[in-house]
Amino acid sequence: MAQNVFVGIDLGGTNAKVALFDDNMVEIGEKRAPSQATETADVILNNLLTILDDLLTEKNLTRKNLTALGIGVPGLMNVRAGVSHYLANFPQWRDVPVVRWFENQLSIPVVLDNDVRMNTYGEWAKGAAKGVQNAILLTLGTGVGAGIILEGHMLYGTTDSAGELGHMTIDDHGRPCNCGNIGCWERYVSATGLIQTAQEALVDAPDSLMGRWQKAGEPLTGKMVSDAYDQGDAVAHAVMAQTGEWLGAGLVSIINVFNPEKIIIGGGMSAAGDRILVPAQKYITAHALDQPRQAVQIVQAELGDQAGMVGAAARGRQKWADARQS
Amino acid sequence: MAQNVFVGIDLGGTNAKVALFDDNMVEIGEKRAPSQATETADVILNNLLTILDDLLTEKNLTRKNLTALGIGVPGLMNVRAGVSHYLANFPQWRDVPVVRWFENQLSIPVVLDNDVRMNTYGEWAKGAAKGVQNAILLTLGTGVGAGIILEGHMLYGTTDSAGELGHMTIDDHGRPCNCGNIGCWERYVSATGLIQTAQEALVDAPDSLMGRWQKAGEPLTGKMVSDAYDQGDAVAHAVMAQTGEWLGAGLVSIINVFNPEKIIIGGGMSAAGDRILVPAQKYITAHALDQPRQAVQIVQAELGDQAGMVGAAARGRQKWADARQS
Repeated sequence: MAQNVFVGIDLGGTNAKVALFDDNMVEIGEKRAPSQATETADVILNNLLTILDDLLTEKNLTRKNLTALGIGVPGLMNVRAGVSHYLANFPQWRDVPVVRWFENQLSIPVVLDNDVRMNTYGEWAKGAAKGVQNAILLTLGTGVGAGIILEGHMLYGTTDSAGELGHMTIDDHGRPCNCGNIGCWERYVSATGLIQTAQEALVDAPDSLMGRWQKAGEPLTGKMVSDAYDQGDAVAHAVMAQTGEWLGAGLVSIINVFNPEKIIIGGGMSAAGDRILVPAQKYITAHALDQPRQAVQIVQAELGDQAGMVGAAARGRQKWADARQS
Repeated sequence: MAQNVFVGIDLGGTNAKVALFDDNMVEIGEKRAPSQATETADVILNNLLTILDDLLTEKNLTRKNLTALGIGVPGLMNVRAGVSHYLANFPQWRDVPVVRWFENQLSIPVVLDNDVRMNTYGEWAKGAAKGVQNAILLTLGTGVGAGIILEGHMLYGTTDSAGELGHMTIDDHGRPCNCGNIGCWERYVSATGLIQTAQEALVDAPDSLMGRWQKAGEPLTGKMVSDAYDQGDAVAHAVMAQTGEWLGAGLVSIINVFNPEKIIIGGGMSAAGDRILVPAQKYITAHALDQPRQAVQIVQAELGDQAGMVGAAARGRQKWADARQS
């Protein structure tokens, strides 16, 4: 039992997920619970510790067995200082010294980073990006998140905010974005964007399959578009084709600019799968520069919603290993 | 006279430029001559050597004084192998082992890279990017070139083709690009793009100042648009404002994605200066994400058409220094 144990925490707006990993990054156990986002930071952090303690007890372990911890959170932060400034949906959370708080409680190395970078570290440690030096993870969900690994290093930028591929301009006369820009990619290829595209298409086709479902009281969702597509509905096919082309237009920029080896697509929208990936790939074949296009593979993420815990634990492990070396 | 001498060569489609630098990267001397682009590779390379020999003679130096050499060329290449595959405007030039050729002739370390990366290395060594860890150079000329320095490293990508910021999609229903994509940024913010925008504006305003100049036989150029702007011509003002907004739309993507400390604007179009930079900056203030926008400075390049020679010499010097250490 001299084995190391690494903790990975993924704190989301709805749920908190905690997992333990062994030296080979094989998961020992995992626990999920509501993240209590409306409470104070102290309640939220103590709740994470309770989930962790419960999980340790289940596995006949104690805090003394823990080697290092990583935690991924959404929102603005200072990665180097270990301080989370602001989390959407966490109204009482401001400038929380997350790393110091956990280090005080557990006396082990602790790392904080944003959720999508932790997902990327996870896919890099044991998922679709394993062994790759130039890889980009895109999470297509309510918004678009991205983690960018270049020549073996995660991109942070001057003030840790690099990677906002969802806020590239792809149509400078297009849809306004919440961020203040016009025509951001996210407005087209997120689930939110897909639903808007479908809603706009239904104005001219109220009696199509999706229009009838909607009139019967079903909410318009990404899944509804996929379901209508699978039943051969022409409007759903047009919406997926258009969304796939928009996905392709942004991927062309990414391929031309970064010349990556792999682009990994994750997040809820990736459930649309080939319905959007086939038209996206067709757009890329027609429009990207030859040399980087031939070098890139576009694949789906492998770790699903475990990626954030895996990546967080891998980061904690790296900090612990670096400290031992120096 | 035990001082080191570093050679920087910038091989362009029209002219070849060769310069010598001392240990402190101060220029010792410089010579320019036609690049003889239509000749064979051997003639072109021997011509470069003749320019170098003439320059050495002028400065009372010989080949024995040389320490290292760098050369920047446009087009496709394998940087690590030191082979230039293809140069636009050099019809007989194919798969030329440039590094081996110069190393055989001079018996010193030699480095090859593309012209815009060499410009970027130049601005990094002693220009607008000096001391900066996250800097992006944009050269707005006939096309748009870019060199991207992230966390102290130049970005190359999987097959050395990274950095094509001119081929980001900014309007996916926009102008077709020679590269095969639609709505590439280059189609709007290069000199070629500015001229197209002006030409389109003149269709509805044939009697405006630029229209009259054109009818009098003057070719429509970027400089003509600047001149008409300075004389208060409304069409030229609208063209510059629109071009500045397009410049801003691409810069917003760059700021949001890379979170750079400096963006450096060079190339012929940068002569338009505030005529396009003021509307671009206004667009950025309105549309970029707050955090990276507050971290970035947008400045003009400092080294003009010497940047390529400076950067090439600096790269040669780095290769020589690395070899001494190992």
